[in-house]
Amino acid sequence: MINFEMRKSGMLGRRNQNILNDETLKNIYGSQSLQYFNQDNSVTFVFSDSKPFDLIELEQLLQAVGWGRRPLRRVKRALDNSLLKVGLWQHDPKFPRLIGFARCTGDGIIDAAIWDVAINPVYQGYGLGKQLMTYLMRSLKREGISRVTLFADSDVINFYKRQGWTLEPKGNKCAFLYSN
Amino acid sequence: MINFEMRKSGMLGRRNQNILNDETLKNIYGSQSLQYFNQDNSVTFVFSDSKPFDLIELEQLLQAVGWGRRPLRRVKRALDNSLLKVGLWQHDPKFPRLIGFARCTGDGIIDAAIWDVAINPVYQGYGLGKQLMTYLMRSLKREGISRVTLFADSDVINFYKRQGWTLEPKGNKCAFLYSN
Repeated sequence: MINFEMRKSGMLGRRNQNILNDETLKNIYGSQSLQYFNQDNSVTFVFSDSKPFDLIELEQLLQAVGWGRRPLRRVKRALDNSLLKVGLWQHDPKFPRLIGFARCTGDGIIDAAIWDVAINPVYQGYGLGKQLMTYLMRSLKREGISRVTLFADSDVINFYKRQGWTLEPKGNKCAFLYSN
Repeated sequence: MINFEMRKSGMLGRRNQNILNDETLKNIYGSQSLQYFNQDNSVTFVFSDSKPFDLIELEQLLQAVGWGRRPLRRVKRALDNSLLKVGLWQHDPKFPRLIGFARCTGDGIIDAAIWDVAINPVYQGYGLGKQLMTYLMRSLKREGISRVTLFADSDVINFYKRQGWTLEPKGNKCAFLYSN
């Protein structure tokens, strides 16, 4: 445990980043996971880009933040074709609970786009969303991707602005097309 | 030759879509190509989603429309990882000339993003850009993708609007991040 930081809010507790000596945690969440601990050294939250998802649990999370239902078969294929999937779990050795998610698509080199960023409403306000984005951007940076884009709903624009995202710079605009 | 259409402008000549009886053309451009003919039945322009690209020719095209230089090795990997690449060639049996390009990234199911849409300035104004987008959207539709997005420079916003693209609907905004 070499990286040690208290969150401003104090809610998340200590952080242990990229160094996993605990074989149990490594087996559950992979070697690139990031863990937060309670004061009694028990693990509370874990970010992972390798732990597989239960599709039904994932769709329940996305619906909890107000998004529409999607056919699970299509969601599965979309996840399989994504560059990167990040999950945030409330740790439990037997039943880790998925409380956050984000994924990226792109060519892996020049462009990446971030989609489906979600934190379970019960866990919002503790800085977990920001940590999720930091964890995800760090993973993308490791890949050497030069441009990252996302479409943000208007009520979370400030969330991204605070993290250094720029809104339509240089006179660029974005266009959507929903095809049927 | 079953699909037969005169362009409004009359500049592109007849169109022969998806039906390729000519083995020479099929070998060069693949079976899903779309060809335009002169009045003397010679082929003028061909859209293809399978003919490979010469990377230097492609970068020359993208620079001709004013975009920055990119390392060819990275461009190659980005192309390899793209869902779909469409080329527009001025036909020549020995030396087809690349005069248009577009590519898509995404998960292939839920999201696709369009990048690098370019028509050589000499060939602009004849409706080729619109045809390129139509050809590309038809290819995406065949895959069953439900949402397509793109970032457009401000001077081509109207080009996309005329084709039914919607600008930031429902209060959504887009954010860019250029990471270094």
